[in-house]
Amino acid sequence: MRHLALTIIAAAAVCLGASAQRMPGRVNFPDGSYSPVTNINRNGFPRILQDGSVMFQTNAPAASAVQIDLGGRKYDMTKGDNGAWSVTTAPQMPGFHYYSLIVDGVSVSDPASYTFYGCSRVSSAIEIREDGCDDFEVQDVPHGQVRTLNYYSNLEKAWRPICVYTPAGYEKGNKRYPVVYIQHGGGEDHTGWMAQGRVANILDNLIAQGKAVPMIVVSPNSNITRTAGGMGGYSRTGMQPYFEEMAMAIIPFIDKTFRTKADAKHRAMCGLSMGGGQAFYIGLNSPQLFANVGIFSTGMFGGIQQARELDLENEVPGILSDTENFNSRFDHFYMTCGEQDPRIEHTRKMAAKMQAAGIDVEFESFPGDHEWQPWRKSLHAFAQKLFK
Amino acid sequence: MRHLALTIIAAAAVCLGASAQRMPGRVNFPDGSYSPVTNINRNGFPRILQDGSVMFQTNAPAASAVQIDLGGRKYDMTKGDNGAWSVTTAPQMPGFHYYSLIVDGVSVSDPASYTFYGCSRVSSAIEIREDGCDDFEVQDVPHGQVRTLNYYSNLEKAWRPICVYTPAGYEKGNKRYPVVYIQHGGGEDHTGWMAQGRVANILDNLIAQGKAVPMIVVSPNSNITRTAGGMGGYSRTGMQPYFEEMAMAIIPFIDKTFRTKADAKHRAMCGLSMGGGQAFYIGLNSPQLFANVGIFSTGMFGGIQQARELDLENEVPGILSDTENFNSRFDHFYMTCGEQDPRIEHTRKMAAKMQAAGIDVEFESFPGDHEWQPWRKSLHAFAQKLFK
Repeated sequence: MRHLALTIIAAAAVCLGASAQRMPGRVNFPDGSYSPVTNINRNGFPRILQDGSVMFQTNAPAASAVQIDLGGRKYDMTKGDNGAWSVTTAPQMPGFHYYSLIVDGVSVSDPASYTFYGCSRVSSAIEIREDGCDDFEVQDVPHGQVRTLNYYSNLEKAWRPICVYTPAGYEKGNKRYPVVYIQHGGGEDHTGWMAQGRVANILDNLIAQGKAVPMIVVSPNSNITRTAGGMGGYSRTGMQPYFEEMAMAIIPFIDKTFRTKADAKHRAMCGLSMGGGQAFYIGLNSPQLFANVGIFSTGMFGGIQQARELDLENEVPGILSDTENFNSRFDHFYMTCGEQDPRIEHTRKMAAKMQAAGIDVEFESFPGDHEWQPWRKSLHAFAQKLFK
Repeated sequence: MRHLALTIIAAAAVCLGASAQRMPGRVNFPDGSYSPVTNINRNGFPRILQDGSVMFQTNAPAASAVQIDLGGRKYDMTKGDNGAWSVTTAPQMPGFHYYSLIVDGVSVSDPASYTFYGCSRVSSAIEIREDGCDDFEVQDVPHGQVRTLNYYSNLEKAWRPICVYTPAGYEKGNKRYPVVYIQHGGGEDHTGWMAQGRVANILDNLIAQGKAVPMIVVSPNSNITRTAGGMGGYSRTGMQPYFEEMAMAIIPFIDKTFRTKADAKHRAMCGLSMGGGQAFYIGLNSPQLFANVGIFSTGMFGGIQQARELDLENEVPGILSDTENFNSRFDHFYMTCGEQDPRIEHTRKMAAKMQAAGIDVEFESFPGDHEWQPWRKSLHAFAQKLFK
């Protein structure tokens, strides 16, 4: 197609962005602002200002109204003499934020930024650096690999994609490795944890620092057709189809394909939001499969979806009535939530309720709303506990 | 961020697309039209009609002008009573086509379709099936893996991403494999051949049919900073930096990391458009590295960039004057172009000129303009010739 033909000539000028975006480093400006690594072709906008606010600028001379939707808040852009619209948002938390450009009422991706599958669409995003935190950056350490492959699901009757992180050194020798099964959130897919979540950087860095043991991380797509969205509501029965997918299709495929330690002690299940609900129901109800469970920012305890309190004992039999047996079957039961996430109050309350009953569950919170920075930090913390 | 929070509730309804897009299969309608696999969430639009024309529909009640840019041609959409704009394009060739949505003059990605890195931005795309051709589809055969990893370039002084396809069975045993180094076009990156080009499906299918030997396919990012865009114009000297990247950084890393057959006879270099120019200059001038070269739809022979005819002998010394020696150093020298590509006339002419001089070069053309379907077919044909 001719677009491409034409851009071949222009390639010299515009192609730097393709590699720049995927390499550590930003474009820094003299006033201390910078354009984030999520910008295409080292575009000057969006630009992160020193106070964490974001300046957007879009050329739209013929548009009559242009807005930015960042974090669910809409900002009206104002038109300059040159036909460029601009706005500066309120200061943002560090980390990864989805955003949309709204041109005369049409919500679209911004051609100035890379897109990621989230919010049930391809969404633009900005990556705001967190000063002093390079846990999620590419560092000069041995690097693992992120693999995309297909497994055949006899349940879905389809080839389904799945992402697998293998640690540095996996290629050499015949060592076997423990496995973390990590679940994306609603409106995301198997690419979420690898792209937005930066699993490879997190594990590469932790393993190089000796803070985590080498492990495989498997990111499946839980959007199975047997329960629309793979969610099936917050109930044990609703989770049954994805439990079957995990137990009968995904885990057997991974143990057959990779050099895994194929027992519960060497398996963890964790996830964010909707995936946290899956980790709660499937992970805690399957001690024969998982001895380690991590639940990040799930809404099932309330704050968003749930009007009334979840009946813990009904959803996970024994969690309140047979705590000694429960504790003996799990090595790590870990829960987190963002400190600005409306779910935190109920989550903290339910963790306290389990603790009061004698359940050995750890609760931790991280700065941030219902977004990727607390989820990255949750994995960063959880991975350091596992398989030791 | 709250988008995500809200979509968790909606996930049941909207998340199917995430897996559907990545699985073979489309949504078919009774009238014989269908929505392609590139649609998000099984959206009804864009929709491919029986004659290959594409019907687009976008909800934009407040917009005053909405267009679709498909294949470089702009189509004005017309507004319906319901605020939905729609248009039906001219019939399109089968295959993969980038497109843009233009809302009141602003060219953006269409939230209804998945995006791919091409045209130096993230671009929406449609995949139009080619009747009777399933060479590029996921089939019920053994599947390889697509890996994304980083190599450190001492020349670029940076960690750089690279995609590597390993064939089914690579995981087991200690077999060594030949390697194809495949180059993307201008405005694309290392993800192009894997996502738009469907390398894994092409090789999985050919290997399963016994038409190609198992091989590794390496897709580097040629957008190096030492020559803006990695292109450096169509000249041997302009190509020198990427030649050095290939010879001193990429090939040594691949031979160190994977079980390769590390000699020229078991290496091929090929590429599309800008990447075809790289295969021409670097591949044909480096018989110590490559004994197999494939040049797909390059513009260097004219048709787009070149006003005057390329001086073959000056760019590849010996290609006209020492053909016997040249032929003895290469097992396969293969050139292709799309039959609707403005480059084809000059490409055919130069191939004939080399053949007249005694060079053992094969030229083949495939239906299509300067786009992915002929490039997929070029790899499909080239791979069957190699390493036998």
